Amino acid sequence: MDRTLVCETPKRVNEKIKIEGWVNVVRDHGKITFIDLRDRSGIIQCVGTNLPKLNAEDVISIIGKVAKRPEKLVNKNISTGSVELQIEEVKVLAKSDELPIDMGKEELDVELHTLLDWRSLTLRHPKVKAIFKVQAKLAEGFRKAAMELKCTEIFVPTIAASATEGGAEVFKVKYYEHDAYMTQSPQLYKQMLVPVFERVFTIAKAYRAEPSVTTRHLSEATQMDCEMAFVTFEELMDALEFVGSTTLQHAEKECSNELKLFGVPKLQIPNKIPRLKMREAQEIIFKRTGVDHRMERDLDPEGEREICRWALDEKKSDLVTITHYPTKKRSFYTKPDPKDPEYSLSYDLLFRGIEILSGSVRINEYNELVSE
Amino acid sequence: MDRTLVCETPKRVNEKIKIEGWVNVVRDHGKITFIDLRDRSGIIQCVGTNLPKLNAEDVISIIGKVAKRPEKLVNKNISTGSVELQIEEVKVLAKSDELPIDMGKEELDVELHTLLDWRSLTLRHPKVKAIFKVQAKLAEGFRKAAMELKCTEIFVPTIAASATEGGAEVFKVKYYEHDAYMTQSPQLYKQMLVPVFERVFTIAKAYRAEPSVTTRHLSEATQMDCEMAFVTFEELMDALEFVGSTTLQHAEKECSNELKLFGVPKLQIPNKIPRLKMREAQEIIFKRTGVDHRMERDLDPEGEREICRWALDEKKSDLVTITHYPTKKRSFYTKPDPKDPEYSLSYDLLFRGIEILSGSVRINEYNELVSE
Repeated sequence: MDRTLVCETPKRVNEKIKIEGWVNVVRDHGKITFIDLRDRSGIIQCVGTNLPKLNAEDVISIIGKVAKRPEKLVNKNISTGSVELQIEEVKVLAKSDELPIDMGKEELDVELHTLLDWRSLTLRHPKVKAIFKVQAKLAEGFRKAAMELKCTEIFVPTIAASATEGGAEVFKVKYYEHDAYMTQSPQLYKQMLVPVFERVFTIAKAYRAEPSVTTRHLSEATQMDCEMAFVTFEELMDALEFVGSTTLQHAEKECSNELKLFGVPKLQIPNKIPRLKMREAQEIIFKRTGVDHRMERDLDPEGEREICRWALDEKKSDLVTITHYPTKKRSFYTKPDPKDPEYSLSYDLLFRGIEILSGSVRINEYNELVSE
Repeated sequence: MDRTLVCETPKRVNEKIKIEGWVNVVRDHGKITFIDLRDRSGIIQCVGTNLPKLNAEDVISIIGKVAKRPEKLVNKNISTGSVELQIEEVKVLAKSDELPIDMGKEELDVELHTLLDWRSLTLRHPKVKAIFKVQAKLAEGFRKAAMELKCTEIFVPTIAASATEGGAEVFKVKYYEHDAYMTQSPQLYKQMLVPVFERVFTIAKAYRAEPSVTTRHLSEATQMDCEMAFVTFEELMDALEFVGSTTLQHAEKECSNELKLFGVPKLQIPNKIPRLKMREAQEIIFKRTGVDHRMERDLDPEGEREICRWALDEKKSDLVTITHYPTKKRSFYTKPDPKDPEYSLSYDLLFRGIEILSGSVRINEYNELVSE
């Protein structure tokens, strides 16, 4: 018998079908046993008598009849809640060990080392799984935006003969007889491909050997980059905000159930996303909080959060673009503003308190050197 | 004045426009100069008098009038061949150095070290650029296929505490105070995510420290992987051939001009792609060539080419699926065929003489261990 996906069961009432998946929960009521079976499409309640002893995460195959549930037993929390499967036959495809942690709770609530030591199990928790689903849809949304901007996808090397960015520490690799380094950024590869395709994008790994445990430091990160030639600073801001909002809106649309698990509020993105120079943002923060960081050369994390609160309060926007960071604070390839070279044609896109996209006009924007 | 893309010029006859891009070729005929200007959308011939001295790869901006060319001067090889731009003003945005190699030839025809030493230049040659365009469209086609199969995209780590596959050599990384290794395959991560999403795909880096200079050895490669649970070997073959043919057909459709540069023949993919067990393939090769490799435990490169010639001759197919490689020749996680355990439920998809996809049923297909 062909397998039926769990999500299709409400359309198969009174039919005999086969489903396959993982035991999510077993509730043993003496003679009657309830099994919540999970496959990629959802969860369904199965009910039977005289079943073999089953544990959570056993992999099983069930043949049975789909039955409509009485109105008062309908479970509105799951998409198959109007039906249940009356088990005729259970086959155990693989037994699981006894679980070391309780996977049935709404919050996993374990220490980091437990989360990681049992990763092949903890990944299955709905709130952990949701993170990976959102990640997939953010990438998909980013690609959609980049392709609408006519960027060509590129794949860049991650092992290089020398460090690619100043500042950050690098990981060293033994490359046959040579010393090599994990790339800190796809930046220079993107810039080499711009004279080829004019507009490129990449989803690439970046490695930074910074032994700091903060949400702003990752030894290995996946980053999403666009690079475009022949655009003004204004057009670049438009592209930035288009990429940011398209990416977020796509993930919101595709992950409504996942975001609900975390109580994530609905996106607020106005037609015109507020744009401020860094000095203007500092001024606003000073006026709102009385804390004076107007001489600092960057926004600190609390400043980023405060300016996002301002954007939401005053402009009904979850996004705010900050431009014109001091030239000295940005990478060597950042172009100073010709009108005020102390500040650069750089930008950060902030979303609910943190920077999610960052970039600048390059000094070699129109200067695609042929020699290397 | 806003910039116009080169590809739009045939629709702008008699209008004054601005275009921006790279000088592809300059032909100096004394007073009159012809410039082929290249942007992301194409190439257009521009003509003017008393122009500044220009070199190939200079980055320029031109204002001029679009003029229809006389019938006999139409260039059918380029999409803008019915028009030319009569230059009124040229602005040099960035001067290039004198080129170290002739970029105007149909074949670049340089030594490997020259190709790589001048990479930011050589990438711009139409035949080199074409390779990167085809790569982008293969990835896009693969994602399209994987998503049609309902696989969820995953992003996997590339630095691991130990080697992930037997056999192949690994690159060692100094990871803070620890020794770590570049992952040789996303395999184990995929298998961990299968109980979460049931079907996953990834485009991931794989690193192999094999110092062999062949087309079958790459120190750093980008590979495209799917992993699915609850499928029979038959369904897996169907999925394999669907992914292979969708990927190739998408690239063919999107890259017709690029493939023409290399004289690539049109794809031949029948509804039913031929499937052979490895021993059957060896038998066919022996009958066609008289060379007897029937006792070998794998097809050699010449054998792969010969069986592809057979598939094209006899089945009008550029693709052929070879199954049932000897169990001992495949990775530890490959499942032996229950009917004949000396051979495994493994497969290679061959395309015009080389293996492009490979895989197997896993021993733990229904055995998603909870303990690690």
